[in-house]
Amino acid sequence: MKSKINFRIATQNDLDKIVEMLSDDILGSQRERYEQPLPNSYKQAFDATSSDPNNELVVACYDNEVVGVQQITFTPYITHQGGWRATIEGVRTSSSVRGKGVGTELIKYAIQRAKERECHLVQLTTDKTRPDALRFYERLGFKSTHEGLKMKI
Amino acid sequence: MKSKINFRIATQNDLDKIVEMLSDDILGSQRERYEQPLPNSYKQAFDATSSDPNNELVVACYDNEVVGVQQITFTPYITHQGGWRATIEGVRTSSSVRGKGVGTELIKYAIQRAKERECHLVQLTTDKTRPDALRFYERLGFKSTHEGLKMKI
Repeated sequence: MKSKINFRIATQNDLDKIVEMLSDDILGSQRERYEQPLPNSYKQAFDATSSDPNNELVVACYDNEVVGVQQITFTPYITHQGGWRATIEGVRTSSSVRGKGVGTELIKYAIQRAKERECHLVQLTTDKTRPDALRFYERLGFKSTHEGLKMKI
Repeated sequence: MKSKINFRIATQNDLDKIVEMLSDDILGSQRERYEQPLPNSYKQAFDATSSDPNNELVVACYDNEVVGVQQITFTPYITHQGGWRATIEGVRTSSSVRGKGVGTELIKYAIQRAKERECHLVQLTTDKTRPDALRFYERLGFKSTHEGLKMKI
């Protein structure tokens, strides 16, 4: 299956499937609103992401069907001698392909894009209630060196 | 002292002091290069940050002297119903004022900016080798709900 997966920047037409995937998840089901019509906030975020050269909303496709999503943000930082970083967020795969390596391919693609954008670091945070996700990222070579702190405002 | 601290966007003239503060730190001393002239990568990162409406390199000033720095990045995300987040990075205070609450005021300022930019979340990662920093952020109301994963590339 792996060789048949390809990646592209999401279009407005993918938004419905993206929100469906984000919602089809224990944590996502509590915080997303997958309904018709989609809440306008998703469209606004899509427009903001799409028009920002430092954000890429990426979909994974298999047989022309969207089966995965992730958002990659490229940020110029003063720290680390002024190094750019890539931050990965919102990684989800369609339940129809779960366990088939699409998630791994998504992350590998993000790492490739980070290299193309001359980042020195790829980073993400993963909820401590997802031990499987932590192991998944550690297998891919991520190091759990930091605490990920959040504050709702 | 608190009431006399003010905040502004950093200018090119602040860059030397900023890099000095980033370097004057156990972890920073290993990864920054505070030398004259400053490595060009800092200037490039400063230009990239300054020209990006979603990045703010902020300095804290006391008596017109720069005594603290942080970078705030605003990111539109598809997740959380298309919510914007503010990410704080590179928080440092001058050793001349350490312990006087400048760090607290910096973070409070970042939270204020996040609210002004209509973010729903403020986030940061802190190195697990800095237990004092973790306690500092938890006292300010951050929750250590996530693992912060990094991969050097």
